[in-house]
Amino acid sequence: MNNRSWTTKRDEKRKKLASVQHLVKGKIIDAKNMKEALECLISSGDRVVLEGDNQKQASFLSEALNSVDPKKIHDLHMIMSSISRPDHLTLFEKGIGSKIDFSYAGPQSLRVAQMIEDGMLKMGEIHTYLELYGRLFVDLIPKVALVAAEKADEKGNLYTGSNTEETPTIIEAASFKDGIVIVQVNEIVEELPRVDIPSDWVDFVVQSPEPYQLEALFTRDPSGITELQILMGMMAIRGIYEKHNVQSLNHGIGFNTAAIELLLPTYGESLGLKGKIAKHWTLNPHPTLIPAIESGWVESIHSFGGEVGMERYTAARPDVFFTGKDGKMRSNRALCQVAGQYAVDMFVGSTLQMDYYGNSSTVTSGRLSGFGGAPNMGHNPHGRRHSTPAWLDMITTNSSMERGKKLVVQMFETYGQGNSPVFVESLDAIKVRDEADLATTPVMIYGDDVTHVVTEEGVAYLYKAEGLEERRQALSAIAGVTKLGREQSPKEMRKLRDRGLVALPEDLKVKRTEAKRSLLAAKNVRELVQWSDGLYDPPEKFKNW
Amino acid sequence: MNNRSWTTKRDEKRKKLASVQHLVKGKIIDAKNMKEALECLISSGDRVVLEGDNQKQASFLSEALNSVDPKKIHDLHMIMSSISRPDHLTLFEKGIGSKIDFSYAGPQSLRVAQMIEDGMLKMGEIHTYLELYGRLFVDLIPKVALVAAEKADEKGNLYTGSNTEETPTIIEAASFKDGIVIVQVNEIVEELPRVDIPSDWVDFVVQSPEPYQLEALFTRDPSGITELQILMGMMAIRGIYEKHNVQSLNHGIGFNTAAIELLLPTYGESLGLKGKIAKHWTLNPHPTLIPAIESGWVESIHSFGGEVGMERYTAARPDVFFTGKDGKMRSNRALCQVAGQYAVDMFVGSTLQMDYYGNSSTVTSGRLSGFGGAPNMGHNPHGRRHSTPAWLDMITTNSSMERGKKLVVQMFETYGQGNSPVFVESLDAIKVRDEADLATTPVMIYGDDVTHVVTEEGVAYLYKAEGLEERRQALSAIAGVTKLGREQSPKEMRKLRDRGLVALPEDLKVKRTEAKRSLLAAKNVRELVQWSDGLYDPPEKFKNW
Repeated sequence: MNNRSWTTKRDEKRKKLASVQHLVKGKIIDAKNMKEALECLISSGDRVVLEGDNQKQASFLSEALNSVDPKKIHDLHMIMSSISRPDHLTLFEKGIGSKIDFSYAGPQSLRVAQMIEDGMLKMGEIHTYLELYGRLFVDLIPKVALVAAEKADEKGNLYTGSNTEETPTIIEAASFKDGIVIVQVNEIVEELPRVDIPSDWVDFVVQSPEPYQLEALFTRDPSGITELQILMGMMAIRGIYEKHNVQSLNHGIGFNTAAIELLLPTYGESLGLKGKIAKHWTLNPHPTLIPAIESGWVESIHSFGGEVGMERYTAARPDVFFTGKDGKMRSNRALCQVAGQYAVDMFVGSTLQMDYYGNSSTVTSGRLSGFGGAPNMGHNPHGRRHSTPAWLDMITTNSSMERGKKLVVQMFETYGQGNSPVFVESLDAIKVRDEADLATTPVMIYGDDVTHVVTEEGVAYLYKAEGLEERRQALSAIAGVTKLGREQSPKEMRKLRDRGLVALPEDLKVKRTEAKRSLLAAKNVRELVQWSDGLYDPPEKFKNW
Repeated sequence: MNNRSWTTKRDEKRKKLASVQHLVKGKIIDAKNMKEALECLISSGDRVVLEGDNQKQASFLSEALNSVDPKKIHDLHMIMSSISRPDHLTLFEKGIGSKIDFSYAGPQSLRVAQMIEDGMLKMGEIHTYLELYGRLFVDLIPKVALVAAEKADEKGNLYTGSNTEETPTIIEAASFKDGIVIVQVNEIVEELPRVDIPSDWVDFVVQSPEPYQLEALFTRDPSGITELQILMGMMAIRGIYEKHNVQSLNHGIGFNTAAIELLLPTYGESLGLKGKIAKHWTLNPHPTLIPAIESGWVESIHSFGGEVGMERYTAARPDVFFTGKDGKMRSNRALCQVAGQYAVDMFVGSTLQMDYYGNSSTVTSGRLSGFGGAPNMGHNPHGRRHSTPAWLDMITTNSSMERGKKLVVQMFETYGQGNSPVFVESLDAIKVRDEADLATTPVMIYGDDVTHVVTEEGVAYLYKAEGLEERRQALSAIAGVTKLGREQSPKEMRKLRDRGLVALPEDLKVKRTEAKRSLLAAKNVRELVQWSDGLYDPPEKFKNW
């Protein structure tokens, strides 16, 4: 009906592939040709996904992209789930990139904010991981994907092993829309232990001079767990896990949840809860879960990604972890986020600030950190239609339209980092919104999605609160000596406790005097190794023996 | 630390695989050995996923499972995203299965309800597709997966082509947890056009005597579109798509949305909207989208699955559709649902009943249908953090915690099937909950998630309604001569229109007299074929020439 071409993307790709034939051998690019190859394969203004997961970085490709001539390639629209490496931002200083869409910018969050202020970086949007993956198939379809795998064969089949992460999702978006897929691998081998991604989806493979960067992000040394955290953990177990019959859950990163993991085989066991709660998990293989796994608490764990040092352990526990025919773990960030949103009873996380109505954010003054997966898992998914006992337990009315809720738990000490109160009248995030000219305030978890808050003072059952004022009162009751906490009168406190809106340790039969480090199933990393039967290999920095 | 085995699942799988060695050749099972093989590979009580997508059915494996001896194999816990075939339920009549977890039961919904009442079927839960996939990695991890692909090679690599659908997701859950994966294929070939699923994930392949069942679920014949539907479509385009600057969207199945698709190149064009709205889509390749695609309205479409007859057309339009290196479309139900939840501005669907507060359900008396993906896409995802113009347009306050909303649109005529009013005081779903002993009422979309309702009378902008009473009034204003509609007074109507809570055709400058079938870009299937340049091959039942 008309003469327009419907294969412009495919034709462009074909041309680009032809332009590097002198630099490649089949699908293999030699590392030393990478700069030149990128200058042929990428055009200015292209949408480029650079793999930076939470832990796993396409570090060689990131460096190679930094080495291209900004006169040849500039103003790329970069998509990175995590801005983790300094060179992720150097790209923008050089003008190779100009716009960024991302999910998380932990260690680089200060610099991100500064560069936006300086006009060096044009901000796209902050996403949860899952939103960003979704947009890769809608309005952020990539022209080029730069990703990392463990091994490849000569044909370009990929082995991603324990750290499969988001690699297949990114590749799928690019590959099936005539994008160019370039993969750095630690090793090119004749036969792969298993195929995680078929070669048909891959255009080029480069053996990186160094293995890809991998961080042990989910490892918490039990020696760092305080008795206040143990007290909070005991309250959480009694007042939430046991009370609501929580079967499946996700734990965020942090010492609070590490404490709970280490209390299950001791305190949890003493309450007779083994086999009754916390059986199914969606989280990375936390080393602090080893004692609970070994004691038979855990039926299954599906993971977003791997964890450095846990490779041999996970491989030896296939009844618990998802593993492949080669024995190694299989992770999948997109599917695990789906499970973490829709298929578990509870999310437990922490925050740097919470306002008096339960809104929380880790975006604080001058830091544009993003939230990774927390908002995705830390909200009540309105699309959920199946029920579980914990979900139904959140019902507070008997309307025929009533349904359950996901348990969204925030745990923190009333005074946080730098000894400043976590409860604040107004989130720094509001200021950051204005400074960085964001469309909305970067809130991590909204107050109306939070069902429980745990501090060292007690548990606030926010799902029972009727209206904002009551939510504020319940938070005040567990806010200690912070400004919010001082609002509380003994009479009001009594009322809140009687109505079950707040529980103090004594209400939960948790004895403060029992909250000792001796209650932890493992007190240090060495004991985790012992629990693992020598299968856990902690990174050097966690070894002090 | 203890002597328990951590490889019980792997050991059991090894034994099962060994037990069928006399029936297989490598990974290939001969169709005539299927019954015996299943009797060896499945144990009573096992959790078994049987692929029944919306359109694609593992029909041979479903029949084979029905042929096993119920004395040998009984009380299976079946997981089926869609209960579509009579033999899906015969399984339970025979006692081979006893419990079911599912998402959708369209044509079998009456029988499902009856069998539950008769105690023949133990109901698990009703899920959205995405919830069900999530649970496959948490607490519904399958022991056996019975799925369908188009082709396999001798090694067990799979080609799923246009209908990739949910196959890789199901296989991933089973395969990486030592489950057994059995795939029926239409053809075993030497070389696949492309590999969609690597052979490492597959245990057995059987060449089915008949190709797998495939239904043309998303095909709507334009000759069935009424002038009332055209009027509603015009109102939707002006009053929603244009008004809110909708860039990305999902359309459900139905004549209402088919009308909109066919109005874009005519009515939409006359409004100068081409290139401005409705550019990115998440939906199956609807034939009624062909004229909009050919006219240059559509930048991208990512699909849950394929559509019968659209194979050559999608292959010839790779700039729009996701396609593989062999040229054929690639779909992915799980990722498209993620995109449809999180990455698009708007969902437009229909319903059989809506109560006076906007709660809707397609579960009506005696029918336990489930909802497929509608609730997943038809809700406001609280985990969303990125903004778009349409999303921001839903903001009605200036609180610093305010954020946008997904547009969730319900479109229907005030009198529906059997000439009964769609607006009802109480949803039949409440009765069904009681009869089938469900934990909550099977609501498809909750009133508090619906932003717009369109009837032949006008558009109700529910996102602007403050409180339940106002929501009811806005609905009443577009409820025509139904009982709810008769509540409306002219004075109230005036007020609602002035406040922008309701728009009538004249408010939107939509002329009723222009709502003619001549406004459709294609008036019948034959014209769709013409628009497609002969690339669309409609199934026989849609051909009347």
